[in-house]
Amino acid sequence: MNKNRKGKQVFYAHSGGVTAVINATACGVIETARAHTEIGTVFAGKHGILGGIKEALIDTNLASDAQLAALRYTPGSAFGSCRYKLTDLDKQADVYARLLSVFRAHDIGYFFYNGGNDSQDTTHKVYQMSQRMGYPLTCIGIPKTIDNDLPFTDYCPGFASTAKYVATAIREAGLDIQSMCSTDRSTKVFILEVMGRHAGWIAAASGLASEQTGMPPHMILFPEVAFDQARFLKQVTHTVNQYGYCTVVASEGIRDKTGAFLTASHQTDAFGHAQLGGVAPMLSAWVRTHCHYKTHWAVADYLQRSARHIASQVDVDNAYLLGKEAVLHALSGAQGVMLTLNRDTHTQWSIGTVALDQVANVEHTLPPTFIDTNGWHITPACMDYLRPLIAGEAYPPYTHGLPDYGKPWSIPLVKKRLPAYQGL
Amino acid sequence: MNKNRKGKQVFYAHSGGVTAVINATACGVIETARAHTEIGTVFAGKHGILGGIKEALIDTNLASDAQLAALRYTPGSAFGSCRYKLTDLDKQADVYARLLSVFRAHDIGYFFYNGGNDSQDTTHKVYQMSQRMGYPLTCIGIPKTIDNDLPFTDYCPGFASTAKYVATAIREAGLDIQSMCSTDRSTKVFILEVMGRHAGWIAAASGLASEQTGMPPHMILFPEVAFDQARFLKQVTHTVNQYGYCTVVASEGIRDKTGAFLTASHQTDAFGHAQLGGVAPMLSAWVRTHCHYKTHWAVADYLQRSARHIASQVDVDNAYLLGKEAVLHALSGAQGVMLTLNRDTHTQWSIGTVALDQVANVEHTLPPTFIDTNGWHITPACMDYLRPLIAGEAYPPYTHGLPDYGKPWSIPLVKKRLPAYQGL
Repeated sequence: MNKNRKGKQVFYAHSGGVTAVINATACGVIETARAHTEIGTVFAGKHGILGGIKEALIDTNLASDAQLAALRYTPGSAFGSCRYKLTDLDKQADVYARLLSVFRAHDIGYFFYNGGNDSQDTTHKVYQMSQRMGYPLTCIGIPKTIDNDLPFTDYCPGFASTAKYVATAIREAGLDIQSMCSTDRSTKVFILEVMGRHAGWIAAASGLASEQTGMPPHMILFPEVAFDQARFLKQVTHTVNQYGYCTVVASEGIRDKTGAFLTASHQTDAFGHAQLGGVAPMLSAWVRTHCHYKTHWAVADYLQRSARHIASQVDVDNAYLLGKEAVLHALSGAQGVMLTLNRDTHTQWSIGTVALDQVANVEHTLPPTFIDTNGWHITPACMDYLRPLIAGEAYPPYTHGLPDYGKPWSIPLVKKRLPAYQGL
Repeated sequence: MNKNRKGKQVFYAHSGGVTAVINATACGVIETARAHTEIGTVFAGKHGILGGIKEALIDTNLASDAQLAALRYTPGSAFGSCRYKLTDLDKQADVYARLLSVFRAHDIGYFFYNGGNDSQDTTHKVYQMSQRMGYPLTCIGIPKTIDNDLPFTDYCPGFASTAKYVATAIREAGLDIQSMCSTDRSTKVFILEVMGRHAGWIAAASGLASEQTGMPPHMILFPEVAFDQARFLKQVTHTVNQYGYCTVVASEGIRDKTGAFLTASHQTDAFGHAQLGGVAPMLSAWVRTHCHYKTHWAVADYLQRSARHIASQVDVDNAYLLGKEAVLHALSGAQGVMLTLNRDTHTQWSIGTVALDQVANVEHTLPPTFIDTNGWHITPACMDYLRPLIAGEAYPPYTHGLPDYGKPWSIPLVKKRLPAYQGL
């Protein structure tokens, strides 16, 4: 396929936690590259940057059109992702050198890295190293993260679909609890724990379900607002007295006034971040003990970032657009940038760029103007920002009653041209 | 047709945990009753049987056609449900007498009670009492329960939609974990906790996602199979070694070989049943401690029984059909029965009946032929039974990117004709 291609090859890879729409970005990259003969083959890295270092490359030209099309509606990563973070340029000089050797061996001239904060930092470091070593490499970061905590971009693909999921979930669960709450010994308080280690965007998104005062969620617990147990329990009681029940959406990352996480599962992830979880059962136990209400709790965990069955059409479209524009920007000479989504009108986005050195490791948390003064809900300004993101239902195809995400990509890796690397 | 009952009113009510499709049954009852002049007004009980005892009746004739139609796609209960259980006929004689006084005061000749095991028992007791007291009352139970544990019926409405939800959830989360699992320090084991106190139907339904060997879920933990920690940990390790990761769906009701629940939240529901929850974090901690894998866990809780956004079309259709047929069976002289769904062909259902005294408090657990001999998965026979239940996507309408479940029914209660009851 495409034997008359003249351009340099692309190395494209997924990094960090996957989303419901990161494969749609892959689809945009690959389809657009195929349509432009001045760019070569798109090699997808098996498990992100590790695929580059280990010379584990997937030749996307071998994928059928049907396989490519399926990327638009398949959650997770078709090529695999990783949480490997390249650190200091000097300390890991050998790893960077190896990566560039692999790129040289396969005539790779474009590096598109698709991820969140840590991954944009990696993109930036690879860019710096390619400059230092005089290896010509177009480096473009493509944003992605359900946490929505990248700066400069209007939002991050993946977040909008998670937002749609959590708002739908709390609306539906709310109707369930409301159906029973006024009878004796029934559940009065329901707590849904959502992701968001340092930024409350996902928790905030649940607020979209609350189109009128009194509709679930009644309370949102943000990492940006210091948790105070007594104040929390008082507000729960007040809400039950007022509405007969209380639905709470709690970010996994809520912290007390000293900044300590309310709970940690005593695991850390590959970047040394605390792996959180279990806030909901803890809050639930407090409500039972102190308020004597019957409680239920749910923890959405990976369900919220893989729920492609209820993905936002806007999110899928923008994820695809970013992939497409990475190729187009590369062909136009963009370099050392992360692409951004700019909101032109309330419901239309275009693509911009920001220098990678401005992005790396900057965390974009909820602005104070998006949190209600009482600290329990989002403001109309936040609603206004969030609502367009969840518009449209991008349903996947179904077979036998279940979303049909096709078979895993089982394309043999590109033949290795270098000896195996022992440095990892 | 019994001409003595011509024109009598219907008392219809929801009982026990609500589902994504119980309102569709309400829609079937009300629309069918409206179309038959030989039957009177459908009064919906506010909060189940309590609405009867307290004379809290909703005149469904006051609902608009649009409100009625919305019942087809709104989860929860439009009228409210309850977990109140009528016990011994003699011990609670005054409560039964009060209920029949209310029925007499409003010329109610039909009692349709829509619920699970405990609720069918209530239907049966009301039937017995009406016979004993010589009050002419057509008593028909309509099945409903996400637990799918009612006997005689092919399945219970609500279950099929929960089945579709859990199978979709584990398929999607599985793709997420698979994307990362082979890299260092990534999540290797994911545990999803689902409902099912004594019967493993919901956990079993997750098995639908496993269309080929090796596809998630890799392990299903049923209440019907005694849990053995060592055997569990060994199988998790084996699975990770074989596939690189392991996804587990655990019923909240799993028990050890002595029959003791693995965990209980030390709450009991209104029927005195232990309120379970928290199996997933416990299993997860064991896997971390003993196998040293990084784990994640989710607890679906109410999300699984309210997820109308991914309801099964078959489920919605059958839920409606049961409501319709309750009216038609009543008009044809049925009495003291629960309606059943009979599967005529693999994908077609008709309505049958079974005497209430055969149903009450019989729990229908997973047959041994539906559990794989190793105890970790479902058999092809189980797949064959389950698959037709989740067919079709009955999407609700969306507004602003979220399912539009309309406004709550705010119809004033029917004017009371009796003094308030103090006996509850």
